[in-house]
Amino acid sequence: MSTAVIYHDTPIASTVREATDGLTVVAAESDADVRDHLADADIFVTNPQNWTDDFLESLSAGTWIQSTSIGYDAFPLAEFADRGVTFTNAETLHDTAVSEHAFALAFALSRRLGPLFDNQRRRDWSRRVGDEMWLWEGRRMTVFGLGNIGESVARRARAFGFEVYGVKRTPSIYSGVLPPDRVVATERFYDLLPETELLVLTVPLTDETRHVIDASVFEALPDSAAVVNVARGPVVDQDALLAALEAGEIRGAGLDVFEDEPLPEGSPLWGRDDTVVTPHVGGRSDDFSVRFTRLFVDNYRRWRAGESLANRIV
Amino acid sequence: MSTAVIYHDTPIASTVREATDGLTVVAAESDADVRDHLADADIFVTNPQNWTDDFLESLSAGTWIQSTSIGYDAFPLAEFADRGVTFTNAETLHDTAVSEHAFALAFALSRRLGPLFDNQRRRDWSRRVGDEMWLWEGRRMTVFGLGNIGESVARRARAFGFEVYGVKRTPSIYSGVLPPDRVVATERFYDLLPETELLVLTVPLTDETRHVIDASVFEALPDSAAVVNVARGPVVDQDALLAALEAGEIRGAGLDVFEDEPLPEGSPLWGRDDTVVTPHVGGRSDDFSVRFTRLFVDNYRRWRAGESLANRIV
Repeated sequence: MSTAVIYHDTPIASTVREATDGLTVVAAESDADVRDHLADADIFVTNPQNWTDDFLESLSAGTWIQSTSIGYDAFPLAEFADRGVTFTNAETLHDTAVSEHAFALAFALSRRLGPLFDNQRRRDWSRRVGDEMWLWEGRRMTVFGLGNIGESVARRARAFGFEVYGVKRTPSIYSGVLPPDRVVATERFYDLLPETELLVLTVPLTDETRHVIDASVFEALPDSAAVVNVARGPVVDQDALLAALEAGEIRGAGLDVFEDEPLPEGSPLWGRDDTVVTPHVGGRSDDFSVRFTRLFVDNYRRWRAGESLANRIV
Repeated sequence: MSTAVIYHDTPIASTVREATDGLTVVAAESDADVRDHLADADIFVTNPQNWTDDFLESLSAGTWIQSTSIGYDAFPLAEFADRGVTFTNAETLHDTAVSEHAFALAFALSRRLGPLFDNQRRRDWSRRVGDEMWLWEGRRMTVFGLGNIGESVARRARAFGFEVYGVKRTPSIYSGVLPPDRVVATERFYDLLPETELLVLTVPLTDETRHVIDASVFEALPDSAAVVNVARGPVVDQDALLAALEAGEIRGAGLDVFEDEPLPEGSPLWGRDDTVVTPHVGGRSDDFSVRFTRLFVDNYRRWRAGESLANRIV
């Protein structure tokens, strides 16, 4: 008999409970709940937002942690390895949602939905906002990071008439929708920027990508460029981004992720007319529970059978 | 020497003036301005929003009216014909902007951008909104009206993984991106509805299409459906739409056009969480002046040369 502690802000505990046999599911609602039950559990399901290193001491060797997210920069992987803890992520679970979210942000910027929503709330039929709209068709989109999500964004962007380029650490291993001459190595990223009007960030956070989008990137982009970040906040130097927006070096930002989350109430990003802030919900959708449960059940079956787990990181 | 009165809420008078020789351009700023100058002009540039039938008496035979819009249901075409007035519209000028706007509305609904903008204004990092989001991938989109804009929407939608169907008066003359078995005649429209989750309206307003989207359509759609209207307001029975939203018969509406424009301040549509209201700006973009001026200059050259005008309706 196994016990899983599930600590998540969606009701996946109930769908997992229904879909599994021989598994006791504990739905934790607070850090304290987790600490009360984790020592007796052999499975822990959570996400980076809910994880705290305080949980480490309750993890015994052999425990399996299944994250509901793709990014795992918030988890202490070396500690997991030291303690004999297995860690799996949710690669591919969120691709579609994140790429649809990226376009939602891009169109919210180009169609000026922020000011239009303000007008809607005031019941104000002002058509002047229309003068500030722009077309995406025919403009260059550079997708920074051609993993599953970046590829998914690139595929959709081509149908919208974007001139799509991609940046990949190792372009030679790329095999996707973009022609080979449109995929460049990170070192050549700057060559693309003067013509880039939409920079979409879909790269994992690593030591190499931390603050890879800095003041020099914003300087190299044209004034008419916008940035969409559906990757991880620290990929962008957020102070430099804010300065670039304030100086008019770029004309907009669609941000689902931030250096500090929740985004502090005092951040000027909240109040900007040229910036769309969403609270790290790019991966969400109403079939998340179904999709996650399917992934979990498959991994749980493997785990009970002693097979190797899917998406194993540690 | 010709005189053009230009009555429009964007600065096209100056771009047209710069791009033409031998043309006196009068930029009218009010109905009274138009009445003062129209009798002495031989060209009138305006849009359906600015048009009023009071202008008719100032139009002499031989006057050419160039509309900046596609739809011409607001213009008295029979009166134009009677008076020997030529009328041209701006077919294809707005295709890209309108289809990008349609996706902006569709994604604003599925990613719940309205509630998220409200939260942004309050600096509120609430992730619960994420539970209400849905994916478009894999769902059926039905495009009602496969003219230039409908075709443009259909082409983009396929890249997003929509299962795209189209409705056309005469499917036999369709030649576009959709397979023939995905294009049905208006009579078969209802067959598509039970599986349609995004209904996009891109049909011209005619006697046949007035209120073609009525209570029976909303009943036939699943509860999970949303409607996007970038065509003309009266294509939809707006009272029936409101009733369907209130009853939960559909889950959202993205509306750029309305039965009465401006949308009256008292309309409940303004205040709905499940409805995105934009003020008939689907065709707008910051290169509108450039695009329109190119179209006008071409037609002006034809007009001076006595050639037939492009996009001539009357």
